[in-house]
Amino acid sequence: MTTPKSANLTWHGANVSSEEREQALGQKGCVLWLTGLSASGKSTIARRLEQMLLERGVTAYVLDGDNLRMGLNKDLGFSPADRTENIRRVGAVAQLFADAGTICITAFISPYRKDRDDARALNAPGRFIEVHVNTSLEACEARDPKGLYRKARLGQIPDFTGISAPYEDPASPEISLNTEGRTVDDCARDLIKALFERGFFGAA
Amino acid sequence: MTTPKSANLTWHGANVSSEEREQALGQKGCVLWLTGLSASGKSTIARRLEQMLLERGVTAYVLDGDNLRMGLNKDLGFSPADRTENIRRVGAVAQLFADAGTICITAFISPYRKDRDDARALNAPGRFIEVHVNTSLEACEARDPKGLYRKARLGQIPDFTGISAPYEDPASPEISLNTEGRTVDDCARDLIKALFERGFFGAA
Repeated sequence: MTTPKSANLTWHGANVSSEEREQALGQKGCVLWLTGLSASGKSTIARRLEQMLLERGVTAYVLDGDNLRMGLNKDLGFSPADRTENIRRVGAVAQLFADAGTICITAFISPYRKDRDDARALNAPGRFIEVHVNTSLEACEARDPKGLYRKARLGQIPDFTGISAPYEDPASPEISLNTEGRTVDDCARDLIKALFERGFFGAA
Repeated sequence: MTTPKSANLTWHGANVSSEEREQALGQKGCVLWLTGLSASGKSTIARRLEQMLLERGVTAYVLDGDNLRMGLNKDLGFSPADRTENIRRVGAVAQLFADAGTICITAFISPYRKDRDDARALNAPGRFIEVHVNTSLEACEARDPKGLYRKARLGQIPDFTGISAPYEDPASPEISLNTEGRTVDDCARDLIKALFERGFFGAA
């Protein structure tokens, strides 16, 4: 018997496997999930890390309030349900970037353990790296670049993480990042090293 | 006068410009927006195109129902409002991928002109390429790989695009792609050529 060569046969889909993608791009995708208090340094470290990775020819991308709150999540406010939905969407988008082979760096307070664990669960084992940017409340409050802590202490911002709303410390983050007395570059280099050691990209 | 060297100075953000990103990655990001009837061939062409681009070392990624409806958009149904929200989120995520330097290929029916124009408006001029996969209704209905047209004709699927719900043809798409009597590879090659001519990546 011969198989009939239907014209439709040529319309079967070609799906790129993760392995093919990684081989073609010369890197592996992952989600590097930065969590920590407001003013702990998450976005600043994320942006510098992105820059350093790009200088090495590694495709990396930061998701943070700057590009999510004005776009995808512009319909969301700051109610508990909206905060959870915000993090749910961030997690879903980060997983897509990781699936695309990108080193996706997220920088959100993400104070709830459950929300972070849900984001983790979307990814293959080893592809979600939780980074606790563990700057102390005292240090964050001393930095206070936007004056938010001051306002929160005055009761002008309700439900402010660390002051009037909880921050649930990661129980066992892959990386606990100390920022106090260190430079942004120090912190970013720690993360580059951690990514390199995990084999997400090769030597520069 | 000397400027005090505040410890906070080192915490100023580094932001990667689009130009730096493109230079580092050796390609430019864009959104290639495929629109057309159900069974017109959008996803099949998108997946094959993605594969061809990856073979050339170009970072590309498909957004379609397979990776969006189960994840980011799993809270959305098929009401008119939910369909519009579905496309709004797709547009927002596609813009992020383009911003990251990826060739982002979207494959959704996206029947409404306004929804597509809204997605276009998120991108810099020239970075959104609308591709009308203009397979005729007759050809789509003859293919009907999932039997959806048959069910729609029997009234078992309400608001089915092309049968009981409108499809608004693109008024002036960048590309009008004929698929009838052609192979998937023919179609994907047309799009490779169009992307190459627009300078989104260099010679293989």
